[in-house]
Amino acid sequence: MTKVYIYDTTLRDGAQTEGISYSLHDKINIAKKLDQFGIDFIEGGWPYSNPKDTELFDYFKKHPLRKSKLVPFGSTAHPANPAFKDKNLASLIKSHTEYVTIFGKSWDLHVKDVLKITMEENLKIILESVKFLKKNKKKVFYDAEHFFDGYKANPNYAINTLKAALEGGADLLVLCDTNGGTLLEEVQEIANEVKAQVAVDSFGIHCHNDLGLAVANSVACVPMGCVQIQGTINGYGERCGNADLVPIIGILKLKMNCTLTCDKQLKELTELSYFVSEVSNMVHRDNHPFVGRSAFAHKGGVHIDAMLKHPLAYEHLNPQVVGNRRRFLISELAGKSSVVVKAKELEFELDKKSARAKKIHKLIQSLEKDGYQFEAAEGSFKLLLEREFTKYKKFFDLLGFRVIVEKREDNRLISEATIKLKVKGAAQYTASEGDGPVNALDSALRKALRKFYPTLSQMHLTDFKVRVLDAKEGTAAKVRVLIESQDEKESWSTVGVSENIIEASYNALVDSIEYKLLKDRKAGKL
Amino acid sequence: MTKVYIYDTTLRDGAQTEGISYSLHDKINIAKKLDQFGIDFIEGGWPYSNPKDTELFDYFKKHPLRKSKLVPFGSTAHPANPAFKDKNLASLIKSHTEYVTIFGKSWDLHVKDVLKITMEENLKIILESVKFLKKNKKKVFYDAEHFFDGYKANPNYAINTLKAALEGGADLLVLCDTNGGTLLEEVQEIANEVKAQVAVDSFGIHCHNDLGLAVANSVACVPMGCVQIQGTINGYGERCGNADLVPIIGILKLKMNCTLTCDKQLKELTELSYFVSEVSNMVHRDNHPFVGRSAFAHKGGVHIDAMLKHPLAYEHLNPQVVGNRRRFLISELAGKSSVVVKAKELEFELDKKSARAKKIHKLIQSLEKDGYQFEAAEGSFKLLLEREFTKYKKFFDLLGFRVIVEKREDNRLISEATIKLKVKGAAQYTASEGDGPVNALDSALRKALRKFYPTLSQMHLTDFKVRVLDAKEGTAAKVRVLIESQDEKESWSTVGVSENIIEASYNALVDSIEYKLLKDRKAGKL
Repeated sequence: MTKVYIYDTTLRDGAQTEGISYSLHDKINIAKKLDQFGIDFIEGGWPYSNPKDTELFDYFKKHPLRKSKLVPFGSTAHPANPAFKDKNLASLIKSHTEYVTIFGKSWDLHVKDVLKITMEENLKIILESVKFLKKNKKKVFYDAEHFFDGYKANPNYAINTLKAALEGGADLLVLCDTNGGTLLEEVQEIANEVKAQVAVDSFGIHCHNDLGLAVANSVACVPMGCVQIQGTINGYGERCGNADLVPIIGILKLKMNCTLTCDKQLKELTELSYFVSEVSNMVHRDNHPFVGRSAFAHKGGVHIDAMLKHPLAYEHLNPQVVGNRRRFLISELAGKSSVVVKAKELEFELDKKSARAKKIHKLIQSLEKDGYQFEAAEGSFKLLLEREFTKYKKFFDLLGFRVIVEKREDNRLISEATIKLKVKGAAQYTASEGDGPVNALDSALRKALRKFYPTLSQMHLTDFKVRVLDAKEGTAAKVRVLIESQDEKESWSTVGVSENIIEASYNALVDSIEYKLLKDRKAGKL
Repeated sequence: MTKVYIYDTTLRDGAQTEGISYSLHDKINIAKKLDQFGIDFIEGGWPYSNPKDTELFDYFKKHPLRKSKLVPFGSTAHPANPAFKDKNLASLIKSHTEYVTIFGKSWDLHVKDVLKITMEENLKIILESVKFLKKNKKKVFYDAEHFFDGYKANPNYAINTLKAALEGGADLLVLCDTNGGTLLEEVQEIANEVKAQVAVDSFGIHCHNDLGLAVANSVACVPMGCVQIQGTINGYGERCGNADLVPIIGILKLKMNCTLTCDKQLKELTELSYFVSEVSNMVHRDNHPFVGRSAFAHKGGVHIDAMLKHPLAYEHLNPQVVGNRRRFLISELAGKSSVVVKAKELEFELDKKSARAKKIHKLIQSLEKDGYQFEAAEGSFKLLLEREFTKYKKFFDLLGFRVIVEKREDNRLISEATIKLKVKGAAQYTASEGDGPVNALDSALRKALRKFYPTLSQMHLTDFKVRVLDAKEGTAAKVRVLIESQDEKESWSTVGVSENIIEASYNALVDSIEYKLLKDRKAGKL
């Protein structure tokens, strides 16, 4: 069974997606999730070229990843500098990682028209750059940018750039279809030429999806000796995106029987895909192979009939294998096991056959149908279980609220919230202004609760995300609000859903506060 | 140059997409657009099995298509009926088309567990059904459902089903990867076996995208004798969708040099894709190969620099060839030159050294510092330029608004907006309720404007995104709202930023409306 290494560049190439803009916090969260899933290599960005990427490498120096190797990315030395004086190479060394990746030019067009140096100079730069990194004890992945276009334009020269990298000591040559315009046949033909002419047994592949062929081109290289596939979660990336690691992992493991480091995590593939789309604030594609909401959804009557007769009739795979589920679009029928597993993870023992399991499962199904999603809101999921498992004593009751936003003729903008609660038997009626309607409501809520529950001052919100569901509905669409909160001990995430963004925010806020209070009650602090 | 025929099944398989539901009117419109584009075959549905599909065939009997052949779809005869008494076959004949398509079972699993007949009976049904259609002077495409799964399970039997169809007189055998789980290697291997064992030179292919390989699997068959590719516009279809004809057409023509009936219409590929997504009420995918809004969008600084030096540097194709366009994304890191380039792209001539360039650049920098992001809001960027370049005549003035969200003690939730505008000299004071505060405001705004600007009813919102900036500030954080809107011709995106989500949404809404009005004013429609 062939072993294939997965190299993720969501944090670098994925960040080039139109509309994606990661904070440091987002990047750290994604890297941790990739680590947990068992991705072999995580390309973290260009260290020391911008503060955000620098902080990322600094962070993981202090908090090392468990399974994944963090890899910094950079280019061959600038033509004006000898390698040992090049800032970019120096920053790769400074990032203190075992591996580094650099890219160099394979295409004569780029050498002449972009770098504007001679063909010989480019070869020398490649050689010297790799050599310098090797002298500094790095394992070096050499990304041959535009390799396929370069080969088509000038085969000998493209091959010579690879030879230069190899002579410099590169540990792996990665063939890149940077412009994404290469047909599968060409990829195979050219990769074979590389193996023959450069005399390597193995290589890596990095494809872009401009023809819609990135997944196919990537996996087709495996039988030819490709040991590393580069791509991004959900295929994020500039233009039409990079090779999508989600179906690639599915295909390698389930259809090609390869060995992957993440073998045992396959059931978390769907969750991984959702997690990254949530953090990226991108809509999760319904028809995403393996992991989309519709990927195993059956609508046609003939198909549903057949599926009830035989589960393989219109599915290439049991969806549970990748953590997804079968759906019949006329009636929602789903499996209970994931709820049981998840509950166990949170230390609630749930017998799959019990009435309680059935009840919780039904409740979750109905909430999910309403747009709730618990993958990125474990806090709310835990509260849901608490409410089912224990005699849950509420901390307060809402009697009502009113939020007003007013744009006056003098252009002043005012947000005000009033809230009416019942706390420990007493009615609380409070008002607060805020920087916006949700902030005003948040302030009023805390103001009303703080004197009863002083530990609330230990917690604060660290993230506040709004996702519009059914975006086609425009401003009438349902909205899902995800809130992350934190105290000195931990962070937790909660969710609220409503067609009204104020109400959705309120629901997520309340869960966030209840999570904190429940924790403190259990610890005897209340 | 190989001629390949394109067979579209958007109206049948595409209609199986979760969330798509075509009216008769929608189906007619799509069929006309496909005809105009030069698609060879349009699968119209199951005639006389449901009223909508029946009316479609009746309509095109009266109003024949010009380039395309409309094809009805059905199955082999029901096991209980002899072919000549089968209602379904009768309806195919009744539809008065030159071609018909029927599918039959290739996979023993389906014969035994779904049809529940003997293997021999199935062969006979296939033979008799095709024979009957041929006797009735139809040209018959025979869709071998689940052919690849069938072949893998029982190669001889799968081959025998094809032989039966051929013996019945089928004009073309179409190999279907119905469950979409077949690897490219397998497709090629099995198609070669078919050619050898059934003794046909040519065949058709029908793939589903459950592995993300449908495009690759389809085009890979062309060099092997595949003369008909079946798929849908934008890859719509059940589960993960069908083979996407958009990149398939692009690849066949531009990368494989095939001859297509739609050769001359290639420049309309982007428009075709938008049109079908609009009628289907689906969001157009930004990263869609060839036709997506981001398909030729450049964000990375290194890439933009290189693109300015050579147009092929990071593009596999001149986007104009498929009716798309190159875009340079104005991102955080944008210097003055990218602003100039971007302006030029939008047909504003800006001298890099001019005072105006300096002013615009400064304005953008300061807006970006405030949290604006123009990369995903080209509509707002264009408006910004319009306001700087032309004597911009505003369409209306805002005098004030007030939004109230109230959660009452009886748990009822109410959202209400009042808005005061000045339009063409007249004051407008309107109120509206809504599904949430933004929806209420949106409704009130449109209500006030519609009678002055009736073309507003042509546009609608397709996406509504909320990004919380500085999420650490929690509910007091600034919020960026991105809105995508669409009419029949194009889509555009606009942005609004504020600490107040209502104000941010208002700003993005106003830009979206002004973009549409400006466009219509320029076209003389106002």
